[in-house]
Parts: sequence; structure tokens; C-alpha cells
Amino acid sequence: MNEKSVAVVGATGVVGQCMLETLENRDFPVKSLRLLASARSRGKELSFRGETLKVEVLGENSFKGIEVALFSAGGGTSKKFAPFAAADGCVVIDNSSAWRMDPKVPLVVPEVNGDDVGWHGGIIANPNCSTIQMVCVLKPLHDAATVNRVVVSTYQAVSGAGKDALDELAAQTRAVLDGETPKGEVFPHPIAFNCIPQIPQSNAFADNGYTTEEIKMIDETKKIMGDDSICVTATTVRVPVHTGHSESVNVETQKKLTAAKARHILNQAPGVTVKDNPANQVYPLALDCVGDGATFVGRIREDVSHASALDMWIVSDNLLKGAAYNAVQIAELL
Amino acid sequence: MNEKSVAVVGATGVVGQCMLETLENRDFPVKSLRLLASARSRGKELSFRGETLKVEVLGENSFKGIEVALFSAGGGTSKKFAPFAAADGCVVIDNSSAWRMDPKVPLVVPEVNGDDVGWHGGIIANPNCSTIQMVCVLKPLHDAATVNRVVVSTYQAVSGAGKDALDELAAQTRAVLDGETPKGEVFPHPIAFNCIPQIPQSNAFADNGYTTEEIKMIDETKKIMGDDSICVTATTVRVPVHTGHSESVNVETQKKLTAAKARHILNQAPGVTVKDNPANQVYPLALDCVGDGATFVGRIREDVSHASALDMWIVSDNLLKGAAYNAVQIAELL
Repeated sequence: MNEKSVAVVGATGVVGQCMLETLENRDFPVKSLRLLASARSRGKELSFRGETLKVEVLGENSFKGIEVALFSAGGGTSKKFAPFAAADGCVVIDNSSAWRMDPKVPLVVPEVNGDDVGWHGGIIANPNCSTIQMVCVLKPLHDAATVNRVVVSTYQAVSGAGKDALDELAAQTRAVLDGETPKGEVFPHPIAFNCIPQIPQSNAFADNGYTTEEIKMIDETKKIMGDDSICVTATTVRVPVHTGHSESVNVETQKKLTAAKARHILNQAPGVTVKDNPANQVYPLALDCVGDGATFVGRIREDVSHASALDMWIVSDNLLKGAAYNAVQIAELL
Repeated sequence: MNEKSVAVVGATGVVGQCMLETLENRDFPVKSLRLLASARSRGKELSFRGETLKVEVLGENSFKGIEVALFSAGGGTSKKFAPFAAADGCVVIDNSSAWRMDPKVPLVVPEVNGDDVGWHGGIIANPNCSTIQMVCVLKPLHDAATVNRVVVSTYQAVSGAGKDALDELAAQTRAVLDGETPKGEVFPHPIAFNCIPQIPQSNAFADNGYTTEEIKMIDETKKIMGDDSICVTATTVRVPVHTGHSESVNVETQKKLTAAKARHILNQAPGVTVKDNPANQVYPLALDCVGDGATFVGRIREDVSHASALDMWIVSDNLLKGAAYNAVQIAELL
């Protein structure tokens, strides 16, 4: 791949930092790197490959001469600035939800629908974190046996809600241990030693009772898999884990798959690591997946409540495969 | 109700303590109270209604003159000592899994199948904590619309694994906050800031890949509901919460129920409290349910992936409705 001039928008955020690390770790051919963020981060400095770089304030003209811009700065920022970047001939890979369901924007998980980068018009969307890890596992099963319906419940890490959320978890946890009352501003309820069935933290609910996070999992799965007939229901829950989303996934297939067959298929699937030796207490865990770009799956078993369904446990680093790593993988496809 | 001579077996455990508190709080007519435990607790003293009582060591002759014995001391102890108690004319209400699936032993949730106490032969089983709260919600829906299939994923609190487990969570949590490596003996993996898809901690897995906790939810639901045709699959997960089990439950019914209708039915169901006002961020939370004997349900919505199914979020205090409270309710039925 030729060297590229790259910009990272939202460079000072949790995912932005991971993007820098991923560009380094994957040895992405960076010709030049521009770090962009809101005025709040003016004057901050970050290091990349041993060099110290100044964070610049994002503006309409930030993308002159940039070939690839990795956006991770919230939907509003993406909606406003991605078109300027695209107009300047830059390819935007956007981690927000702003463009994901736009029919003119491909929504890409390289292992699942990498070919879709071919029809981009300047913007490529990076899917929702919970969706990415799920479709990495669903796709090979779909190819082998046709997925009819998915019932998923998530156990989502706090880092998905950003730095302030991680600070809130730490402060609340210490307060509880010290016998004090936890205080919070990020989450609508205490997250320390609790499970909150609402993601995101505000304006979450649609009229049908689903949260926007749940609707993302439902809609994005169909778009990425390229099959509107796949039925999905989701319950998305925030748990007091720093990083690593876990998912309990029930998959109904048209053709019956044994657990052994599913394990065999997933062992050969790109980007998927099977960890499934329960007798030795081996299964994916949020703590173990941190720092790894793979999607881990285990607890694969034939559902006793259905003639042709599987239960499984899918875990991945929400900041990497769920965000930065997938975005850099997309950039590598260009 | 006449006053009863009562024994509590496993009085020094987490659930045993809750049993004493529940007997006090519900003003159970206790004529006399005998506290029993293993030799490890010899000499310990506990207070009940302002009196200090000495813990006695459990033996074959501990039940002379006792009318009701609340057992919460593990399966082995129940298997061994419950028959001695029953032979002495005592009614055992057993919180372990030892007798639950015995066809000669009723398995009772008072709001669901209270009548089953009528055919006991000296032993009545208290169901698994995760099962109790789920069937409290399923039963009224089953009566109205016939439940065909249930897909449940649990978020289970650490207190369900006992005092040592709670101590381990606290120690590990502090270690992580202080930048140290968490150590553990109770759980097979760190529980602080993690989710472990294995309950119980040891010898959990059956040949079909399900854990014994999951099999309990599947089998006990059918027995309590008195309907073997109800299909259940479960994925049970330990989360870093002190007390309060949460459950993401998908319920397929024969007759379609709207969310509004389900809410109406559950509002009238005994022992169930509907907390379902998502626009105001009102839904059940583990932290909020502690100390309450009710089962809480919210996030009730029509499943977009199925013609006739509901998604919901069920939470209850695993030490109370999931154990001590349900046991004392059974005693009240006698």
C-alpha cells in the first residue's frame, strides 16, 4: 500500500487514542498525520511513533491534502465535517452513527463485507461496536446455514461511553467500597456494582420501547450482512466492566448446525477466535480480550428449546474491533 | 397461623442471615428458634428479635420438637439431614438444589403454584433464585397467552455465591483500583470488572454444554409452571454486582400480547411490580431492588424479530425473593 496522509478526528478521545495505537501497531503506512479535535483540546499534544504532535482544532478546511480521515468525534461532528473532508477528496471512515444507515454510505466490517468499500462516495461508516463483533460470528454461520433470527443480550463495557464514563465508574466504585454514596453525571443511574438496561445514556428510547443501541444492532446487522430477512432482537445493557463487550447470542438457523459443526466453521472464520473448552473453564472473557483485535466466541451449544438454534457467548475489545481496529482495517482495504 | 417452632439450618450463611431477617420483618409467628450450622460455626451467636441465640452444630437429632426447618446449607447437607428432619415430623423448606427435581417433592413459588405445598411429604423445595423471579413474571403471561419458548440471559449477583465470594469481589475491586493484580479463589476467573459466563464456580458443565445453573432454569421452570411443553434456553452469567439478579428475557407466546396488554396483566400479578417508564429512565435495577421481596419487571416491548414475542427485563433481590423470602412465604402457606 502507498503511504497515505492521515487525519484522526477526535484524536484525544478514548477511541481516538486507540486509533493512533492501532495505526502504530498495524504498521499502517502513514505519510503524515494530522490530529484534530474540538477547541476543548486546543494545545494538547499526543505522541505517535515517538514523535510529539500538536492537536489542531477541527475546521472546514482541516482536510486539504489529507487522503484518509478517521472520525471518532460524535454524530454531530461527523454530520457536519465529513462532507467537507469528502469534498476535498479525502476518504472518511466514520465511527459515529451519523452515516451508517445512509443508503449511499457503505457500512463495513472487513471480514464480512469488505467488498462494499468499492462503492463508497467519500464516506465509509464503521458499525456500532456491539454489532461488529456479532456479525463477525454470524456471517460464516449465515453462509453455512442461513440465519433466520437472532436474540442477543449484551454486557457492554463502560469505555464505550468515553473517558468521563470510565472516571465515573472508578469514582463510584471507590465510593461504594468506602461506604459512601456514589455520585454520577454520565449515567442515568449508578453504574458501579449495577447493570443498566439503557444505552446510550440519554434520549435512548424509541416509541417501540427499544433503545437506539438496540435498533442499531437490529438495522446494522441486516445492512452489513446484506440480507434484510435476518430478524434480530436485542437488549443492550451497560455493566461495570472497563473494556470488552460480552454478548449472549441465540441464533436460529434454517439448516440445523451441530455445536461441533459451528465450532468447525468458526475456527476457519477470519477475525474469529474460538475459545470453547468449558470443561477447563475456557471461554471468552472481557478481561482477556482487551488489546486484541479478534472476536472471541465460546459456550457454543445446541439450544434445547429449539429444533435448529445455537447459544453462544461472543466477546471483543469494544475499542479495537468495535471501533479503532475495524476502522484501520477499512483504511487498509482502500 | 399458630406459632411454630422453627429451625434455620445454615444460619450463619448469607441466605441464613436473610432468613432470620425475613422471619422478623414478616412477623412470622415463631414459638422457638433453633439456629443450626456446621461445626465451623460452633460458638457463634446471632440475634433474633433482640435476643442473642447460640448457633448449635447440626446433627441427626437436631429436629426433635421442630415443626418447620428452613435449610440453606448446600446440597450435600440437605440430602443428608432433611430426611432426619422429616422423619421427626418437621417440614423442611430446602433452599438447595438437592430435592428440587425429585417427583415426590413440590417445588414452590407461592405466587405461581402455592397449592403444590398440599402434597408435600415432609420436604418442600425452594427453587433456584434466577428461576423464581422469572416464573413470577412468566406465569400470568402463560395464563393469558400460553408461553411457548423463553430465551433468557442472566446478570447474576455475587452474593448468590456466598460470603467468600462477596469478600473476593471487594478485594479484587480494590486491587484493580489500586493498580494491583486481583487474586481469587472462589471464582474461576476474576469477577471484578468482568463477566463470567459460568455458574456455579466448579463442576458447572453438562455434556450438552449447558451449566447446571442453566439446566436448573430450564427444568425448574417447567416443574413450577406445571407444563413440560414450555421450552426454555438460558445463558447464566455472573456480573460484578453485590445483590440483585437481572435477567433479559425473550418470551414467545401462542397468542400475541401487546406490550400494553402484558403491562396490564403484570400490574395485577401477585408479587410483581411493573417499573416501566423508559422515557423517564425508569426500569428495574439491581441496586434498587435490594431489600424488597417483589419481582420487578420493565423494558416490556414487542419483539420486532417475531410475530408473537415480548422482550423484558426482570430484576429481584436474589437473597430475598430468590431465597429467604420465598422460603418464608412457603412456611406461611403451611
